Amino acid sequence: MTTDPIALTADLIRCPSVTPEEGGALVLLEKLLSEAGFACTRVDRGGVPNLFARWGERGAKTFGFNGHTDVVPVGDAAAWTHDPFSGDIVDGVLWGRGATDMKSGVGAFAAAAVDFVRETPPEGAIVLAITGDEEGPGHDGTRALLDWMVAEGEAMSVCLVGEPTCPEILGQMMKIGRRGSMTFYIEAEGVQGHSAYPHRAKNPLHGLVDLLGQMTAKPLDEGTEHFEPSTLQITTIDCGNPANNVIPAKARATVNIRFNDAHSSATISAWADGLVEGIEATSGVKFALRTEVSGESFLTPPGEFVALVARAVEAETGVTPELSTSGGTSDARFVKDHCPVLEFGLVGKTMHQVDERIEVEQITALKSIYTRILRDYFA
Amino acid sequence: MTTDPIALTADLIRCPSVTPEEGGALVLLEKLLSEAGFACTRVDRGGVPNLFARWGERGAKTFGFNGHTDVVPVGDAAAWTHDPFSGDIVDGVLWGRGATDMKSGVGAFAAAAVDFVRETPPEGAIVLAITGDEEGPGHDGTRALLDWMVAEGEAMSVCLVGEPTCPEILGQMMKIGRRGSMTFYIEAEGVQGHSAYPHRAKNPLHGLVDLLGQMTAKPLDEGTEHFEPSTLQITTIDCGNPANNVIPAKARATVNIRFNDAHSSATISAWADGLVEGIEATSGVKFALRTEVSGESFLTPPGEFVALVARAVEAETGVTPELSTSGGTSDARFVKDHCPVLEFGLVGKTMHQVDERIEVEQITALKSIYTRILRDYFA
Ligand SMILES: [Zn+2]
Ligand SMILES: [Zn+2]
Repeated sequence: MTTDPIALTADLIRCPSVTPEEGGALVLLEKLLSEAGFACTRVDRGGVPNLFARWGERGAKTFGFNGHTDVVPVGDAAAWTHDPFSGDIVDGVLWGRGATDMKSGVGAFAAAAVDFVRETPPEGAIVLAITGDEEGPGHDGTRALLDWMVAEGEAMSVCLVGEPTCPEILGQMMKIGRRGSMTFYIEAEGVQGHSAYPHRAKNPLHGLVDLLGQMTAKPLDEGTEHFEPSTLQITTIDCGNPANNVIPAKARATVNIRFNDAHSSATISAWADGLVEGIEATSGVKFALRTEVSGESFLTPPGEFVALVARAVEAETGVTPELSTSGGTSDARFVKDHCPVLEFGLVGKTMHQVDERIEVEQITALKSIYTRILRDYFA
Repeated sequence: MTTDPIALTADLIRCPSVTPEEGGALVLLEKLLSEAGFACTRVDRGGVPNLFARWGERGAKTFGFNGHTDVVPVGDAAAWTHDPFSGDIVDGVLWGRGATDMKSGVGAFAAAAVDFVRETPPEGAIVLAITGDEEGPGHDGTRALLDWMVAEGEAMSVCLVGEPTCPEILGQMMKIGRRGSMTFYIEAEGVQGHSAYPHRAKNPLHGLVDLLGQMTAKPLDEGTEHFEPSTLQITTIDCGNPANNVIPAKARATVNIRFNDAHSSATISAWADGLVEGIEATSGVKFALRTEVSGESFLTPPGEFVALVARAVEAETGVTPELSTSGGTSDARFVKDHCPVLEFGLVGKTMHQVDERIEVEQITALKSIYTRILRDYFA
């Protein structure tokens, strides 16, 4: 008897687990995993449901999977071809919210793990750390699981995150790191006045344009061995002054930065502070910067673990995966502080869209890939 | 019998002529001027009251006065020490809206003109072109008077605008020109996208910061013989994008420019268009510039008329007036297309403020100055 990852994914889709609703998804997984001999613990924190499951001895060589069962809202429900929580399978395509991001990934690794420990019990342990808040604020999701694991003496030797990673074809890409992300909320304060008498005023917009001009004047870097160049984007500038004969007192801007391993949030903050100081000194405009760090950049450099996953992907799909660090953030940014972490999953094209869907073949293939990874890891 | 410019100004203040209300002010002046032999015509246009008055023959050597009887709103009425329309005189100070800007100026030149033609009828003509909309949009104020004059074959050989021109002491400053004023309303349009994938988007804020940075990078000029340096002020930038992971599609900015006689609105527009073209070509961001010209710069260069007015000011006050082109715009910007125009009036410190007021001595002195100017002009 093997576990069908397609049926499991469809069942998970039928659980309406829009963040932070559990929707039955973790209950379903807990039942499946418990019956296969996994020790399960619900690690709920701050209203967020999380599930920790371990097969094998604590402290042994441990392979970890990480993923999430929560999904983004359906958006325009009327625009869906199939009910977003139906889990309908038509002509080999499974429809529904979470079909790619990432109930299929969770279904595939849960099915792989359950069958693997039944059929070829490894010398070591397998951990599944599954959260119900990856799409939301994420404060009490994977972070809560990792905090709890540290407190309980639980650990993973390596971890694979099952997020969709392939742009077009299964096998095409795995993630070996991620850029960091941070945001500056900038306020510039000058002295209000009349446009005709600028010497009596201090225009905060001129200081702000100077600062933003210096920030965007040249690229932060040209990229590094495993990373694309860092990027900096001004996402808004606002002043709200309706009078063209008035120099305003205040203005604000937001700047979002995606940075590679040539930087950290600290080095970028220091750079910004230096620019601000220079402009404050010459313009008299005062700046206040509030900094929000979503995650530092990180890299699991090519080595044994990367090679193992890449070989398994290639063996099952015939495609050599690109070792990428592109894209937005994922919970790998939390896991990386605990153990080497990689990400591999199916084609994410329709994620977060109306009519999110996946060819069921991909789910079957993904289970095979995860199974081969487990087999090779414990060989 | 002489005309008391203080009583006349107080009577004008008692007319609640907040733009565009006539408030009785022009009716009062028309009566006074008609009785003194001035041919009066109300030149109302677009809901704005205007008064044209001529003494003497049309086509003769004509001295013109220009001014306005409309006033800005009182603002916080409760904050006034005296009712803003009371015309109270206490301890030699006349209180009320328009006390400096510029019912005193109109009172002084009307009183001077009336007494002058009675006492020493000149060989020539005196014209008073008084509008009820200088503080408002100004489309149908002095412009309407000038348009009507052209149509009727009326003209002024020279014109003196009675706006307050002195910063601290009566006699200190006369205006021999004004900077021009124009405003660019700039819209930048790019391509919306995700902050993490800027290569798939075109950030209009980056194009806008580039443009505004180039506009403010260096002064437009270093000043000219009679003018301070031109100034350029960004008065607002707005985008309204709340999402720090989204590159917005559009942003806009407003730029106000006060320019001297080294420029015209056309040369500045051409300069801005050149900057825009350069940035469009490299960034892919598209710009739309809407241009509003409030007035071109102009200069009545030092010469006979300037010397005549300056001598009269000095003779009456003992102060040598600075020949200035500073400050905002005035209706002189319309008059300058018709004849040489200068501006001289009293100390404008409290104009547009709560508790606008003037020492009555200044009004008496101003009438004497205007009288001496008329005498010297027709000598
Ligand atoms: Zn996801
Ligand atoms: Zn005025």
